[in-house]
Amino acid sequence: MHSVLSVNHWNREDVYALFHQAELMQRGTVPQIGGMAAMVFAEPSTRTMVSFQMAATRLGMNICSLDALGSSLSKGESLEDTLRTLQAIGVSAAVIRTGHDWPRSLQRSFSDLALINAGSGVFEHPTQALLDAFTLYQEFGTLEGRRVVIAGDVAHSRVARSNAVLLNTLGAEVYVSGPPQFAAADLEQWTQWLPWDDAVSVGDAIMMLRVQNERHQDRDKANGEDYLTSWGLTHERMQTMQPQAIIMHPGPVNRDVEIASELVDHQRSRILKQVANGVLVRMALLWQCIKGGRREQLVSA
Amino acid sequence: MHSVLSVNHWNREDVYALFHQAELMQRGTVPQIGGMAAMVFAEPSTRTMVSFQMAATRLGMNICSLDALGSSLSKGESLEDTLRTLQAIGVSAAVIRTGHDWPRSLQRSFSDLALINAGSGVFEHPTQALLDAFTLYQEFGTLEGRRVVIAGDVAHSRVARSNAVLLNTLGAEVYVSGPPQFAAADLEQWTQWLPWDDAVSVGDAIMMLRVQNERHQDRDKANGEDYLTSWGLTHERMQTMQPQAIIMHPGPVNRDVEIASELVDHQRSRILKQVANGVLVRMALLWQCIKGGRREQLVSA
Amino acid sequence: MHSVLSVNHWNREDVYALFHQAELMQRGTVPQIGGMAAMVFAEPSTRTMVSFQMAATRLGMNICSLDALGSSLSKGESLEDTLRTLQAIGVSAAVIRTGHDWPRSLQRSFSDLALINAGSGVFEHPTQALLDAFTLYQEFGTLEGRRVVIAGDVAHSRVARSNAVLLNTLGAEVYVSGPPQFAAADLEQWTQWLPWDDAVSVGDAIMMLRVQNERHQDRDKANGEDYLTSWGLTHERMQTMQPQAIIMHPGPVNRDVEIASELVDHQRSRILKQVANGVLVRMALLWQCIKGGRREQLVSA
Repeated sequence: MHSVLSVNHWNREDVYALFHQAELMQRGTVPQIGGMAAMVFAEPSTRTMVSFQMAATRLGMNICSLDALGSSLSKGESLEDTLRTLQAIGVSAAVIRTGHDWPRSLQRSFSDLALINAGSGVFEHPTQALLDAFTLYQEFGTLEGRRVVIAGDVAHSRVARSNAVLLNTLGAEVYVSGPPQFAAADLEQWTQWLPWDDAVSVGDAIMMLRVQNERHQDRDKANGEDYLTSWGLTHERMQTMQPQAIIMHPGPVNRDVEIASELVDHQRSRILKQVANGVLVRMALLWQCIKGGRREQLVSA
Repeated sequence: MHSVLSVNHWNREDVYALFHQAELMQRGTVPQIGGMAAMVFAEPSTRTMVSFQMAATRLGMNICSLDALGSSLSKGESLEDTLRTLQAIGVSAAVIRTGHDWPRSLQRSFSDLALINAGSGVFEHPTQALLDAFTLYQEFGTLEGRRVVIAGDVAHSRVARSNAVLLNTLGAEVYVSGPPQFAAADLEQWTQWLPWDDAVSVGDAIMMLRVQNERHQDRDKANGEDYLTSWGLTHERMQTMQPQAIIMHPGPVNRDVEIASELVDHQRSRILKQVANGVLVRMALLWQCIKGGRREQLVSA
Repeated sequence: MHSVLSVNHWNREDVYALFHQAELMQRGTVPQIGGMAAMVFAEPSTRTMVSFQMAATRLGMNICSLDALGSSLSKGESLEDTLRTLQAIGVSAAVIRTGHDWPRSLQRSFSDLALINAGSGVFEHPTQALLDAFTLYQEFGTLEGRRVVIAGDVAHSRVARSNAVLLNTLGAEVYVSGPPQFAAADLEQWTQWLPWDDAVSVGDAIMMLRVQNERHQDRDKANGEDYLTSWGLTHERMQTMQPQAIIMHPGPVNRDVEIASELVDHQRSRILKQVANGVLVRMALLWQCIKGGRREQLVSA
């Protein structure tokens, strides 16, 4: 049984194998796995959890939810025992969101239970990075040499971290931008900083991040209108984008904070395309984890 | 994709088409739709939510629940964006209960997502009104000229509001009764007030409402025994009912408050029949919304 | 429709009929019942709830959950009305966990709804006792004359109570042991007390109970290390066990409190086997309750 713990484990070949699987499923080739997937979420989630539920049920799987378990998820040991119990019950896959870093005790895969990281604190969100890369792949055919701008609340963003690593793996040039208080020193090895107006004008894709006020200290909380003017994607800035460039956002969007409301539904926007692609990528992942295809090294930590 | 937002959108022909669909399903003709229905409930619910879940699963649909989302449901915009996300994920129908009035931003239907109002504050509960009317239709063959008494906590009742409108549409005479502090001026155009003892003796159906103490100011809270004596359906009052008259209640019942406990299970009672009919009516609604049949004007606001 | 309310209702023949059913299912004979099972849990649960969900879905059933209902579960009347509503909706089985004793109003079975006690306060947990007995049956072929030690927090344990009764029914000798403040006078008719070190050395099975600190007064709360040394199953004590003796635990385990962490995964441990057997036994129970086979006297109180 294979698992998806971190984008650090993926190489280019693995990713394209996943994309081809997702495309097969998009064209209607949907194997029926059966069995049960457990949703183990220590933080609330709408889009990621429902996306996984849709992916699992389209594969003929049943769902159980362990939301209430939240309190025990901060203790890695306890989570590990819970997962061993789920495995003994016969659950095939556990989709796990943790409030903190992925527990060290879960760095290895279980023999009969696929583990999928559905977001761990501010650190990783591998399935989001995979669906974002799939969206770029569908747009441009390849990510090699493409310029992707990740902008805004980088410091608090697991989406930024996982994307920065995976986009590098796939040969893209990754730029970050945004207000200084949201900069993240740990991303310097993967990304290049650009002033915001410069970044908008060079990117093939402008990926706006959600301002996560819930993770901020009071002094850093963003005021909507000011933030939009200084650091958001406004109509004026959009007009300086490359002709082929697209707008992305992992959601949920703060309209008129990091992005002007009208641009959410603009023809350049791929925001809802990202959501739809999320189901396809997660179907392909579940299938690969449970029924094979994913190679052992993908899960070696 | 059609939606069910308000009984104001329904005419007599629409309602009877729905009833015929529900009867087909009662006789075992149950199409398998597949796909997924989302339960989006900002207020707790047992019977309505489980009823919709049963209806959806009998149509072969999967279910996802967004209960935790409650907090964002007061903001209409956020709910709209959540629904757009559900639509992009591939959800076919969203069954929505709101704590307040139905959001203005959701007055139009979505292209690929059926919206069903499962109760909005004290304002509307269209599927309850439809199942009540279906129960009356099964009892009497027609609602034309039938006298329906709605009694009790009218002021706080979305059931009363939706029933008053729909029963008028179907040609019934609608009476209201109950304690003065629970009267609702906004229902005067649809209903006629009668003293409680008179009302009991004229109705073909006596529809008792639940005293919703959770929505009351302290000074209005009903004392069970006093309320039953003054404004409840007692054994003595039941004996003055028309010979053919039935007892209805949307549930959950406060036994020995608005109705004597023994009458809940009386042969005149259709309370559990209403519950069973709720599943049939909601199956018919889901089928009409997702697979067609419901005409466009039903959702024009 | 039959129900599972208490192990007091089971005789030896009933239990072995259930075991044979569970074995048939283990070998792959899994009838598809369809319909819906409701999970009605007033206390949080991971393993029991997911185990029942797995059992029900493997029988082709759909699931609905009424967790939020917790608050109304202390009122027996209200729970009864909720169950009548579920029955009218068409739910086939209700799996119920109550914070207190099983409500008196639910001592009879419903005509079309199977009731299954999934744990009632500190009083009963019949399906846990049945899966424990099934595990012993698979180990030893019979429970007749086998010595089973139940050790630790007996006073707060519904598992101990249900096991003591059922193991007696099946002809086993049942011993209890543990710290004096955790002794339970009400079990004296079913069990014999032994000093802890003696108990370890005589049992065919050593069933360690979870120290339920959440049910204790402050003065009784167990300190992990002290408890393990005085009353836990340590490596040293394990070496005094009978050669054929096995280790059991209903879970969740407090590692290094009632049992040394290394023994949880020891070859003598049947802890995960118990979990896996739980699904089989609950499948057999659901099938017997809904589709027949369970005789009427099993539910007569």
